[in-house]
Amino acid sequence: MKYGTVNSLQSPRFAGVKTFMRMHNIRTFKDVDFAVVGIPFDTCATYRAGARFGPSAIREMSALAAKPYHPELEVDIFEECSGVDFGDLGSVPGYVEESFEVITKEMQEIFANGIIPIAMGGDHSVTLPELRACSAVYGPVALVHFDAHYDTIPEYFGKPYSHGTPFYHAAKEGLVDPSCSIQLGIREGLYGPEDAQNSANLGYESLKASAMHHMTSEQIIEKVYERTKGKKVFLTFDIDFLDPAYAPGTGTPVPGGFSTWEALELIRGLKELDIVGYDIVEVAPAFDGTGITSIAAAGIIQEFMSLIAWRKKNGKL
Amino acid sequence: MKYGTVNSLQSPRFAGVKTFMRMHNIRTFKDVDFAVVGIPFDTCATYRAGARFGPSAIREMSALAAKPYHPELEVDIFEECSGVDFGDLGSVPGYVEESFEVITKEMQEIFANGIIPIAMGGDHSVTLPELRACSAVYGPVALVHFDAHYDTIPEYFGKPYSHGTPFYHAAKEGLVDPSCSIQLGIREGLYGPEDAQNSANLGYESLKASAMHHMTSEQIIEKVYERTKGKKVFLTFDIDFLDPAYAPGTGTPVPGGFSTWEALELIRGLKELDIVGYDIVEVAPAFDGTGITSIAAAGIIQEFMSLIAWRKKNGKL
Amino acid sequence: MKYGTVNSLQSPRFAGVKTFMRMHNIRTFKDVDFAVVGIPFDTCATYRAGARFGPSAIREMSALAAKPYHPELEVDIFEECSGVDFGDLGSVPGYVEESFEVITKEMQEIFANGIIPIAMGGDHSVTLPELRACSAVYGPVALVHFDAHYDTIPEYFGKPYSHGTPFYHAAKEGLVDPSCSIQLGIREGLYGPEDAQNSANLGYESLKASAMHHMTSEQIIEKVYERTKGKKVFLTFDIDFLDPAYAPGTGTPVPGGFSTWEALELIRGLKELDIVGYDIVEVAPAFDGTGITSIAAAGIIQEFMSLIAWRKKNGKL
Amino acid sequence: MKYGTVNSLQSPRFAGVKTFMRMHNIRTFKDVDFAVVGIPFDTCATYRAGARFGPSAIREMSALAAKPYHPELEVDIFEECSGVDFGDLGSVPGYVEESFEVITKEMQEIFANGIIPIAMGGDHSVTLPELRACSAVYGPVALVHFDAHYDTIPEYFGKPYSHGTPFYHAAKEGLVDPSCSIQLGIREGLYGPEDAQNSANLGYESLKASAMHHMTSEQIIEKVYERTKGKKVFLTFDIDFLDPAYAPGTGTPVPGGFSTWEALELIRGLKELDIVGYDIVEVAPAFDGTGITSIAAAGIIQEFMSLIAWRKKNGKL
Amino acid sequence: MKYGTVNSLQSPRFAGVKTFMRMHNIRTFKDVDFAVVGIPFDTCATYRAGARFGPSAIREMSALAAKPYHPELEVDIFEECSGVDFGDLGSVPGYVEESFEVITKEMQEIFANGIIPIAMGGDHSVTLPELRACSAVYGPVALVHFDAHYDTIPEYFGKPYSHGTPFYHAAKEGLVDPSCSIQLGIREGLYGPEDAQNSANLGYESLKASAMHHMTSEQIIEKVYERTKGKKVFLTFDIDFLDPAYAPGTGTPVPGGFSTWEALELIRGLKELDIVGYDIVEVAPAFDGTGITSIAAAGIIQEFMSLIAWRKKNGKL
Amino acid sequence: MKYGTVNSLQSPRFAGVKTFMRMHNIRTFKDVDFAVVGIPFDTCATYRAGARFGPSAIREMSALAAKPYHPELEVDIFEECSGVDFGDLGSVPGYVEESFEVITKEMQEIFANGIIPIAMGGDHSVTLPELRACSAVYGPVALVHFDAHYDTIPEYFGKPYSHGTPFYHAAKEGLVDPSCSIQLGIREGLYGPEDAQNSANLGYESLKASAMHHMTSEQIIEKVYERTKGKKVFLTFDIDFLDPAYAPGTGTPVPGGFSTWEALELIRGLKELDIVGYDIVEVAPAFDGTGITSIAAAGIIQEFMSLIAWRKKNGKL
Repeated sequence: MKYGTVNSLQSPRFAGVKTFMRMHNIRTFKDVDFAVVGIPFDTCATYRAGARFGPSAIREMSALAAKPYHPELEVDIFEECSGVDFGDLGSVPGYVEESFEVITKEMQEIFANGIIPIAMGGDHSVTLPELRACSAVYGPVALVHFDAHYDTIPEYFGKPYSHGTPFYHAAKEGLVDPSCSIQLGIREGLYGPEDAQNSANLGYESLKASAMHHMTSEQIIEKVYERTKGKKVFLTFDIDFLDPAYAPGTGTPVPGGFSTWEALELIRGLKELDIVGYDIVEVAPAFDGTGITSIAAAGIIQEFMSLIAWRKKNGKL
Repeated sequence: MKYGTVNSLQSPRFAGVKTFMRMHNIRTFKDVDFAVVGIPFDTCATYRAGARFGPSAIREMSALAAKPYHPELEVDIFEECSGVDFGDLGSVPGYVEESFEVITKEMQEIFANGIIPIAMGGDHSVTLPELRACSAVYGPVALVHFDAHYDTIPEYFGKPYSHGTPFYHAAKEGLVDPSCSIQLGIREGLYGPEDAQNSANLGYESLKASAMHHMTSEQIIEKVYERTKGKKVFLTFDIDFLDPAYAPGTGTPVPGGFSTWEALELIRGLKELDIVGYDIVEVAPAFDGTGITSIAAAGIIQEFMSLIAWRKKNGKL
Repeated sequence: MKYGTVNSLQSPRFAGVKTFMRMHNIRTFKDVDFAVVGIPFDTCATYRAGARFGPSAIREMSALAAKPYHPELEVDIFEECSGVDFGDLGSVPGYVEESFEVITKEMQEIFANGIIPIAMGGDHSVTLPELRACSAVYGPVALVHFDAHYDTIPEYFGKPYSHGTPFYHAAKEGLVDPSCSIQLGIREGLYGPEDAQNSANLGYESLKASAMHHMTSEQIIEKVYERTKGKKVFLTFDIDFLDPAYAPGTGTPVPGGFSTWEALELIRGLKELDIVGYDIVEVAPAFDGTGITSIAAAGIIQEFMSLIAWRKKNGKL
Repeated sequence: MKYGTVNSLQSPRFAGVKTFMRMHNIRTFKDVDFAVVGIPFDTCATYRAGARFGPSAIREMSALAAKPYHPELEVDIFEECSGVDFGDLGSVPGYVEESFEVITKEMQEIFANGIIPIAMGGDHSVTLPELRACSAVYGPVALVHFDAHYDTIPEYFGKPYSHGTPFYHAAKEGLVDPSCSIQLGIREGLYGPEDAQNSANLGYESLKASAMHHMTSEQIIEKVYERTKGKKVFLTFDIDFLDPAYAPGTGTPVPGGFSTWEALELIRGLKELDIVGYDIVEVAPAFDGTGITSIAAAGIIQEFMSLIAWRKKNGKL
Repeated sequence: MKYGTVNSLQSPRFAGVKTFMRMHNIRTFKDVDFAVVGIPFDTCATYRAGARFGPSAIREMSALAAKPYHPELEVDIFEECSGVDFGDLGSVPGYVEESFEVITKEMQEIFANGIIPIAMGGDHSVTLPELRACSAVYGPVALVHFDAHYDTIPEYFGKPYSHGTPFYHAAKEGLVDPSCSIQLGIREGLYGPEDAQNSANLGYESLKASAMHHMTSEQIIEKVYERTKGKKVFLTFDIDFLDPAYAPGTGTPVPGGFSTWEALELIRGLKELDIVGYDIVEVAPAFDGTGITSIAAAGIIQEFMSLIAWRKKNGKL
Repeated sequence: MKYGTVNSLQSPRFAGVKTFMRMHNIRTFKDVDFAVVGIPFDTCATYRAGARFGPSAIREMSALAAKPYHPELEVDIFEECSGVDFGDLGSVPGYVEESFEVITKEMQEIFANGIIPIAMGGDHSVTLPELRACSAVYGPVALVHFDAHYDTIPEYFGKPYSHGTPFYHAAKEGLVDPSCSIQLGIREGLYGPEDAQNSANLGYESLKASAMHHMTSEQIIEKVYERTKGKKVFLTFDIDFLDPAYAPGTGTPVPGGFSTWEALELIRGLKELDIVGYDIVEVAPAFDGTGITSIAAAGIIQEFMSLIAWRKKNGKL
C-alpha cells in the first residue's frame, strides 16, 4: 500500500478539503514513510500569538504546490514514498505543560513507527516536546536549526517554557547533542551579551546572518555537514529565518533575513543528512496579508518531502 | 451508522483538516441525511471571479461555528441527523458546459439517494446544473431565491450561461415551477426595464429589497409559504442578499442589502418548507478581508442544517 | 448629441479605462446635463489624509454599478440625460488657498453652463470652493448636508480652512442660505457645547443621528422638504454619514451611523428638490480594505444621476 | 489636581504617543476619578488569540475620538472628572493562574482607591480577576454583561479557566450576585442545551439577541434597571455583542449581532446605574482589517467615561 | 502628430482618469509607435482567477511612475515616441475560444499597422492569440519568455487552452521559432519529468532559476542574444518570474524567484533586441495587498517603453 | 540620571503605552544623549499622503525590537546612553510654512542642548526645517542621504516646498555642504535629464542604485567616508531606499531597491561618522499591510541608536 496525492490533472488543485498537498488525511502507522502533522499550539508566543492557525493556512496554500516531481533532485515524491497528512495533534488550549504531554505522546508514536514526521507549528516551543519524543526513540540527535533567534534562554518570566527557551531545555534534558548541532541565521537584537553566551555555553555552534550574507550556499552547507558528523538529525525551521519581506506572517519578525531562494538552496543541499524529523514553525497567518508566508512554508515542506524521496530513491533511507 | 462531528470539547475547534463544521470528509450515500458539498466553479462570473475558493474559505471559518445545538429551534443537528462533508465536485476549469455536465451528474447521485445536499458555490451559475439534477429526481420544484439580482436574463454576450442567467434557463427547461417560486431581496440596478420584466414573464414572483425593508420577517415568511404552496422546495442563497457591510467578499456586491440577523431570522422561519436541496453561492474570499463573509455563510449553512434537524425531529422528514 | 455609457452587454463591465460608470471622459460644456468630476484634494483633512484617491477608487468600483435603469424611479439615466466624466479638477498639492482658487474657477464654468456637477472629493473642504462657484451663478442656495459632523467651526489652528470649517465660511460668505438649510446625521463628539452652538448660531437646522434613528425615512424627507422651501439646493454627502461598518474608508469615521439602505432611501425621497449641484466627499480608499466604501459611494452617485434623470423625464429640469 | 487630555485644537489629534484619548499616562491613585487600563492577556482564548494587542489598537484609534463633550448627555468628561491612562497591567505570558494573580492584585489597588477602572482586554477571562478585585472591595456586585456568548461553562478541556468560563466562576466564587445580573445579546450556537442551562442554574437572567431584535432600547434598558435593583454594578462589554460587520476584529465572532448605534443607545440609557467598574474585551486587531472594531471600542469607552461624568455632574458619584 | 502624456508638473500625478502612465486613451492607428492595451481575460487560470483586473490595477499604479525620462538609457519616452493607451480588448467572459478570436483580431490590427503593442493580461493564455496575431504579420518570431513556469503542457483536463499551455500551441502552430526562443526563470514543481521534457521536445531552451541565481545579468543577457540570433522577438513577461515577496498578486506564485532589480536589469540589457511586441501577464490585484505587484508591473512596462524609445533614438526602429 | 527602557523580561514587550522601544516619554533636555521624536507632517507629499501616522506605527512596531544589546557592535544602548522619546513635534495641519516654523524651533532646542535627535517623519519635506535647526547650531553639515529620489527639484507647482525639494533648498540656504554630501540609492524615473542635473549642479554626489547593486557594502561605505571628510554629518533615510517588497508602506515606492539587510549593513558601517542628527521619513502605514515597513524602520532606528552608543562607548561622542 502506498499513500499518495490527488492527481491535479484530474481534479483541479483548488478543489477539495485542504489536506497538505492533497494527501490523504488518515492517521495510520502502516506503510507510511513520512507524515505531515499540525501542532496548532501558540500559548508560548512572547509577542504575537496566532501560529495555531499555521497548519490550516499552510495546508490551504499547499494546494498551489501540489506537484510531486522535483526537477532539481530529479525525484517524484509519491513514486518513491508513501506519505499522509495526519491532521493535527491535540493540545490543552492555554495550558503549556499539559499540551506538551499530549504532543510528546502523539509524536513519539510517529517516531516509534519509523515514520519521518514533518510537523507544522505552532510556536517554536512545540519543538521541545517533539524532541522529547524524538530522543525517546533515537537518543540525542544533531539539531540543524534555521532561525533569526537563538531560542536558548533558560526561562521567561520565571517560567521554563516559552518559544524563546526550547533549545536551552533540549540541551539540558539531553535531547540533542549540541556538539553536533548548529544554528543558522541568527540576527536578533539581544537583551544582553549573555543571550548569545547561553547558546555557546550549551555547546551549540551558531552562524550569524551577518556572516552568512557573505558566504555561498556551498560554504554554509559544508559547515552543516562538518558539524553534524553523520549523526541522526532533527531539522527545525523557524519561518522567521526568512526576511519579513518574504515571511511577514510570523510572531517575531526580524529585518535583515534571507530570501526563499536562499532557504530552498540550503535545504536542498542537505540531502546527504540523515534527517529523522522536520518541523517548520511560527507561521502566523493573521499577519500574513497575501499568504506569501504560507506559500513559502508549503514550498519548504515540499522541499523536505523531496529530500526524503531522494534519500529513499538513492537507498539512503 | 450516524455521521457526526469532532467534539470540540475534546479537540479544540482550531485544530485539524478543515471540513465543514468538522464533519467527516467521506463520500458515501448510505446512512446520510444531508451532505455539504463544494462546487468550486466560477468561470461564469461576469465581474469578479474568485468563488472557486468559496468552499475552502467557508470550511475554514465553519470551525468557529462548530457547535451542534440550535437554541432557538431547540435541536441538536447531529443527534437528529447523520451528515457528512462530501468534499468538492469536479469541474473542467474554464469550460462551462463540460463543467455543468460533471456537476449535474454528481449532484443527481446525491438527490437520487434521498440525501439533502447543501452546496457551496462557486458562482450562481452552478445552481442550474444543481436544479437539473434536482428536477431529474423530484420533477419541477418551487424555488426560494435570496439574491440582490434577478439572474433571469436569457443570455450574456450571446452565450446562454453566466451567473446572470440560471433562473431563465431553470424556468425554460422546466426545472422549477415559477408559479410557486419567489425571489427575495432584489435591488440591483438594471440594464433596462426588461430585466425586471424577464423575471415576471417567466412567472416568478419577486420581492424587492425596497419593499422588504418595510416588512416584518413574519410578513416576508408568510409570503414565501403562500407562494410555495407546500411543494418541494429548492432554496438558493446568493450571499449578496446581504449588504456589502456584512458580505464584502462576493462577486457583484450591491449596497442597500440585509443584515445577517435579518437573513437568519428569515431562514429560521422557513422550517415548515419541504426543502430538498440548498445552496449558498458567490462567496469570493479574495475580496473578504477579515473573513466575515465566510463566517456569515458558515452561519447560514448551520441554519440550513438546523432546519433539516428540526424537520427530522418533528417527523417531517 | 447625447453622451452615454459603454454598453456592458457588449463590452464586459470589468474592461476598459475606468471612468465613472463607463461614461466618456471628455470635458465639453455642450449638450451635457450632468458631469461627474473629481476633486482630488485632501490637504485639509485633520486626521487621515487620503481622499485625494477617492475619485479614482470610486471610478474603479463604479464599473460594478454600470447599469443605467433605476427600477424604483423607473428611469433610464442615459435615455433621459446626457452625462460625462470630466476627469479631475486641478489643485496645487499642499497649498489650500491656491487650490481653492483653481477649484472655484473650474467649478464655476460648469455651473455657468447649466450643467449639474456631481463632484467627488477630496476632503470636505472642497465643498467651500464648490459653493463659491455655485453661488456665483445661482446666488445663495439651500444646503442639504449629510454628515456625522457639523463642519461649522470657524477656524482650526488659527487657520480658516480645514475640512471642519466649510459651512461656517459658506454661511459667513453668503454662499448658502442657512435658514433653508439642514444638516442630517450629526453624531460626532464635540470639543465643547459651542461646537453645536456654532451651527445653530449660523442659522442651520440640524437633525442628530440620535433623533433620526427613531424617525422613518418619510419623516426625515418631509423635514428636508419643509426646510428647503422649494429653493435651489446644493446637496453635499460626507460618506461618514454612513456607519464605519458600511464606510470604513474615510478620514474621520464615527460609530453610530447609518446603513447604505437608509442613505439610498433618503436620497431617493428627495427627487422633488431642485438640486443644482451634488458632491460626495471623504472617501479615503487606503482605509477601505475591501472597497465597500467606494462601492457605496458609486451607488450613491448612481442615485444622484437617477434623480436628475427622473426630474428631466418629469419635466422638472 | 485634575487630570485631563491634550487639547486637540492645539496639537493635532494624530500627534503624540498614543494614550487613551490623549490622557496622561501615569499611574497615580490620588485625585483620579477613573482610569483606563489595559490588560493585554489572551492566553485563555479558545479560538483566535490576539486580544493582547487590543489595548494598543484601541488607544491608537481613540485619538480619533479625542473630543471630551458629549452632546446627548450634555457633559464634558474632563470638566467633571479627572481621568488618566494607567498603561497596562502585568501578566505572565502563557500562564493563566500566575497572570490572574497579578491582574487581581493590580486591579484591587484601583478599586480600593475609589477609582472607577475602565479595563481594556485581553480576552474575556480577564473579567474574572477583575471581579475578584472588585468584590474584595465592594462585595458581590450586579453584573451587566453584553456578549454573544454566555461564558458560563464550568471548565474547558478539564481546566477551569478559559474565556468561556469566567461567569461560572464569578458566580461560584460569590463575586457577583446573579440574581441582580443580566446577560444581553446571547446568540451563540451551543454544544448542547446544558450550555444555556448553566447560566440559568447559576441564577443569571439572559436576554437573547433573537428577543432583543424585537425590543426597543427603552424596553431593554428597563429590563436592566429592574434586574439590577439599584445595586452596585460591574459592566462588562464583549465586543462580539456587535455584529461581525461592525466588529470583525474579535476572537469568536457570531453573525446576527448588533450595530454600534444600538450598543451606544443602550449604554447611554444606563446612566442611572451605580457602575463601579467597566471593561471592554476581545478586541483582536489582527482580524480587524480597517480598524473599525477598535474605533467602535474607543467610542464605547468614550460613552463609559461620559456616563461617569454625567453621574458626577448630577451628584450621583 | 505625437501622442504623449499629461505633464505631472502641471497636473498632479494622483489626478485624473487612470490611463497607463497618463497617456491618451484613444484607439488610433495613425502616428503611433507603441500602444499599451489591456486584455482582461482570466478564464484560463488554473488556480486563482483575477487577472482580468490586472490592466486596471496596473494603470492605477502607473501614475506613480509617470515620469518619461530614463536616466540609465538616457532617453525620454515621449520625446522619441508617440504612444497611447488603447484601453482594453474585447472578450466573451467565460468562453475561451470566442475570446481568443476577438483578441487575435484586435491584436492583428495593431501589428498590421506597425505599432508595437505592450499588452497587459489577463492570464498567460492571452499570449497565444497575441502570437497568432503577431505571426500573421511577421511570421514566426523568437520568443523571450520570463516565467516561473514552462507553460508548455499540451492540454489541461482534456482541453487545449489554459494558462499552462500557450507555448505548446505557439510552437505547434508555428507562431514562434523555438530554436531561437528562450525561457527564463523556470522553477515550478512538476507533475512529472515530462513537463520539462515538453519544453525541450518543442525545441525551446530553458534557463532555470537554480542556474540563473548563480549567473550575472551580463551572462544571462548574453545567452538571450545568442539564442535569438537577431530575429524579430516577442517578449512575454509573466509577473511570477518575480518572487512572491516582490509580486504576491498573481495566480500561481512560486517561491525562489527574482527581485525587481534583477528583472529590470535584465530587461534593460535587451535593448539591442528587435522586439515587435511585449506583454506582461498574470497580475491579479485581489491578491496584491499593498499594490507592489502592480507597481512592479508598471515599472517593467515603463522599461519596455524606454527600450522602444532607445531604439528609436538610436535609429534601430 | 540616565533614561532607559522598560525591562522586557519583567513586563512583556506587547504591554503598555507605545513609546519608541519602550523608552520614557518625557521631553527634558537634561541628561539626555539622544531623543527619538516624531514629526507627523505629510502635507508636502506629492503622491500618497499618510506619513503623519508614521511615528505612531513605528512606535507600535518598535516594541518588537525592544532589546538593547547589539551583538555586532557589541554595545548595550542604555548602558552607554541616556535616551528618551520626546513624543511628536507640533505642526499646523495643512499649512506648510507655519509648520516648518514650529518644527525648526522645536528641533533647534534639541540640537542646542547637544542632544542627538532621531526624527521620525512625516514626509521628506520635514528634513528641511530639521536642517535649518541643525545648521543654526552646527553650521553647514555633510549630508548622508539614503533615498530612491534626488529630492533636489527647485519647486513644485510653483511652490518651493514639497517632499521633492528639500535638498535643493538645503543647499541654497547653506544648511548643508554639498561638497561633503552624498546621495545613495537613486533610481527614480525622471521628468527629464535636468532632474539629475539639479543634484550635480548643487554640488551633491550621487550613487545610483544601478551602480550600488554591483558594489560591495565595503566599497559603498568607503565612498561615504571619503566624501564626508570627517565633517559633522546629518543622516537622512527615506524608507523608499528599500525596495517596495521590503517597504511597501511609503508615499512614492520605486521598484529596484534594496533589502533591509543591505541597509543595515551600510548603516552599521558608518559608525566612524560624526553624526549629529538622524531622521527616517516617508513611512506611510496605511499602505503597509502587514507592518513590515514599520518593522524595518524600527530596526533602522535601533541601528542608529546603536551607532550612538558605540561612539559613546569608544569615546567618540
